[in-house]
Amino acid sequence: MEIKVITSKDNPLIKLVCGLQTSAKSRKNEGLFVLEGLRICDDAMSNSIRFDKLIISNSAEEKHGEELSAFYKNANEIYKIPDSLFAKISDTTSPQGIIAVVKTPEISAKISQNGRYIALENLNDPSNLGAISRTAEALGVSGIILSSDSVDPYSPKSLRASMGTLLRMPVIILSDFVNDLKNSGLKTYACVVDRDAKSISDIKFSYGSVLIIGNEANGLTDEMKANSNEQITIKMCGKAESLNAATAAAISMWEMMK
Amino acid sequence: MEIKVITSKDNPLIKLVCGLQTSAKSRKNEGLFVLEGLRICDDAMSNSIRFDKLIISNSAEEKHGEELSAFYKNANEIYKIPDSLFAKISDTTSPQGIIAVVKTPEISAKISQNGRYIALENLNDPSNLGAISRTAEALGVSGIILSSDSVDPYSPKSLRASMGTLLRMPVIILSDFVNDLKNSGLKTYACVVDRDAKSISDIKFSYGSVLIIGNEANGLTDEMKANSNEQITIKMCGKAESLNAATAAAISMWEMMK
Repeated sequence: MEIKVITSKDNPLIKLVCGLQTSAKSRKNEGLFVLEGLRICDDAMSNSIRFDKLIISNSAEEKHGEELSAFYKNANEIYKIPDSLFAKISDTTSPQGIIAVVKTPEISAKISQNGRYIALENLNDPSNLGAISRTAEALGVSGIILSSDSVDPYSPKSLRASMGTLLRMPVIILSDFVNDLKNSGLKTYACVVDRDAKSISDIKFSYGSVLIIGNEANGLTDEMKANSNEQITIKMCGKAESLNAATAAAISMWEMMK
Repeated sequence: MEIKVITSKDNPLIKLVCGLQTSAKSRKNEGLFVLEGLRICDDAMSNSIRFDKLIISNSAEEKHGEELSAFYKNANEIYKIPDSLFAKISDTTSPQGIIAVVKTPEISAKISQNGRYIALENLNDPSNLGAISRTAEALGVSGIILSSDSVDPYSPKSLRASMGTLLRMPVIILSDFVNDLKNSGLKTYACVVDRDAKSISDIKFSYGSVLIIGNEANGLTDEMKANSNEQITIKMCGKAESLNAATAAAISMWEMMK
């Protein structure tokens, strides 16, 4: 397959990738996102994700020639660029020299009424989303449901923190989070920090459940709490104000899944 | 109380703080560590931790005058330095201008035979140690036991990630980790990634237990596994290779404490 060479920072592809790396709006408008690095590209490929464009640096070609030949077959277009130019489009400080531009999956995953889900309302930190996705996959959770004001699951930081699991987990973004969850057919459990709420240890989760975790600083909205079937909490001791969102999610998912 | 003014980067105190901020060896040799920022200094003070030296920048004095007056009373010596010099001794990119130098607690905490502990063998990442400490306190774990090759609990990153909880939790560092645990009188549970190990859900933890978590990349040593009472695991699904160490610790502590 033909490998095109780009050397100018003014090339439209270079500008496109810079936009996709830094702006959720640009990712949304273009319907594209970026995978950077050997491992996550490899993960994506083994999940049958096609590379719309593959961009490699000169030194990556020398160093990873063998692995790249499989990547070439998985790519619609291939570009080679100088290391200095790659540094400008990379999201990391020591780039491996491999970037794939990928089409954002259509949000066509449907909520299954027998599934067990984790839902995140206005979650802000891409590291938390990545960590939650990693734990969710390990515990066998059916999918991740996000409010549309949550962090972008296709941002470089989310993907990296998820160790690629966000490419495999069903991700569902709801435009009307509270009402869509209410009408989902799932039993909704709002996770709150409240000594009077029911202890999660006392809940018997049946199939068709969703745990709902809120924003890192503010927790769940009052509207979400009011529209959930049950408010549940992880009982705490000591002076701790609350658990980190990813930790609270991990313990809650563990209780739901076991 | 007298406030001394330092303006030279060659002042011995400036050099001392630089060493304490960056080197575990220096912290060990001096028997001192650093608390940086308003919140963690405040936390320390409410845990009756005395400031051996308090160092504030000129702008911190202007901005936080009121809070600082309580800090002054808790300090043996007070120093004021220019913002430019403070930037050199700070561990953060936007310093608040407040540093306390504190004596490392004598490692005198004893293991209680009725306690429930988390033990970490060769844990490397200060963020993981901080996260584990935060969860441990919230769940009521008796203390944190560390192998002497684990990350320094008094490093700036560990303390920050722990949200100050490492100042309140009993921390016990064992020089002969495997044998000291074996002879501790506690029942030892080695947490492993092994489909054949006993599921943590099937364990009935009694008082006098310790969960043992290994290094992020390599898990527990064979010696530790061979010398534990029981090998236990968190059953996983999917393609996940393993849970993050802090997540595995969170789920395990939850099971032990509930």
